Amino acid sequence: MNALEKIHPTLFNAIQTRRAEHAIEPLFLRRWSPRAFDASKISAGDLMRILEAARWAPSAYNIQPWRFIYVLRGDPLWDTWLGLLDPFNASWAGAASALVFLFSDRLMPARDGQPRQPSASHRFDAGAAWAQLSLQATAMGFHAHAMGGINADAVRRTLAVPEHYEVEVGIAIGRQASAEDLPAALREREVPSDRLPLARVAFPATFPSNA
Amino acid sequence: MNALEKIHPTLFNAIQTRRAEHAIEPLFLRRWSPRAFDASKISAGDLMRILEAARWAPSAYNIQPWRFIYVLRGDPLWDTWLGLLDPFNASWAGAASALVFLFSDRLMPARDGQPRQPSASHRFDAGAAWAQLSLQATAMGFHAHAMGGINADAVRRTLAVPEHYEVEVGIAIGRQASAEDLPAALREREVPSDRLPLARVAFPATFPSNA
Repeated sequence: MNALEKIHPTLFNAIQTRRAEHAIEPLFLRRWSPRAFDASKISAGDLMRILEAARWAPSAYNIQPWRFIYVLRGDPLWDTWLGLLDPFNASWAGAASALVFLFSDRLMPARDGQPRQPSASHRFDAGAAWAQLSLQATAMGFHAHAMGGINADAVRRTLAVPEHYEVEVGIAIGRQASAEDLPAALREREVPSDRLPLARVAFPATFPSNA
Repeated sequence: MNALEKIHPTLFNAIQTRRAEHAIEPLFLRRWSPRAFDASKISAGDLMRILEAARWAPSAYNIQPWRFIYVLRGDPLWDTWLGLLDPFNASWAGAASALVFLFSDRLMPARDGQPRQPSASHRFDAGAAWAQLSLQATAMGFHAHAMGGINADAVRRTLAVPEHYEVEVGIAIGRQASAEDLPAALREREVPSDRLPLARVAFPATFPSNA
């Protein structure tokens, strides 16, 4: 057993499994979505830095359709918010330092006094904001884990979400802990995921018939 | 007039208009979407590095629904591809170094021999890949500009896009040139865009009634 594998098995696995095919900023490989968090607190200032990075994401016509609603660990709402996640996600996300729900506006801003028109790219743009959020969190020594498994209807009611906002994802943000702290069923899944080869997702000129 | 304003008015404007409210990685502020490109070539290796960063984006269940089809400047298809953009985008994107179309798979992978089911997050995930692409391009001294203004039907026909892929955006990648090189109507718009204040897009606990 390698010394690193003994001291920090998760990091060891990350180095083993994640190899870039082409040189990229190290931050992209370091960013992943663990489930083991250490139940420490995050300052409001640090959370604002993480959301600030999301704010600078690109969006169609610079509309910025993303909205973030958050609670910090220690807030009286914490347990209520855990109840908005599906039971699987609630089983680990309780040890995060902050919970965030990300929404996107289905409507474009009003123009020339006309009714607001549907946006074609609000979900795409919200995804860009999520990526920037997660990269900034990683740069600061935190990790962010997006969760599609949430009770969107309960989120709408509890957070008073206007009808024209789409509920995109919940996001758990925290400091990574040892996989040993996870429920047994989750321990062996606590490894950074690999990716399809680049040649399976990027092609010159035309779609291959087997894509 | 400031010396920097004289030498590099675009950079001067960027410094003037973009101020982070909270400290973030400088890359997020440096990333923007210019229209003035210098018509230089990009190597296939550099384009692969840019797409590689996109490949490591997070996605629901790690499905990786993104697909990229690209041409490099100098390819015989270049003019055909410019014709897939709307006339406004074609008026400036011809000076880029690479053109990319980004697609997302509307269907989840097949499971247990069942028919493929619709994906709930393919557009959101594709947006995350786009953000990582644009950040890697910026880190390498390039810029990327996503374009919603494309002829999606023509893209489908020309690139042989399977029906279950959504056409997300076109992306122009290149090295920035002086705004003076742009058509007159575009020159004064060649400034990095600002953002809504963080307090307009991020809220504690619940949606404000005026969001």
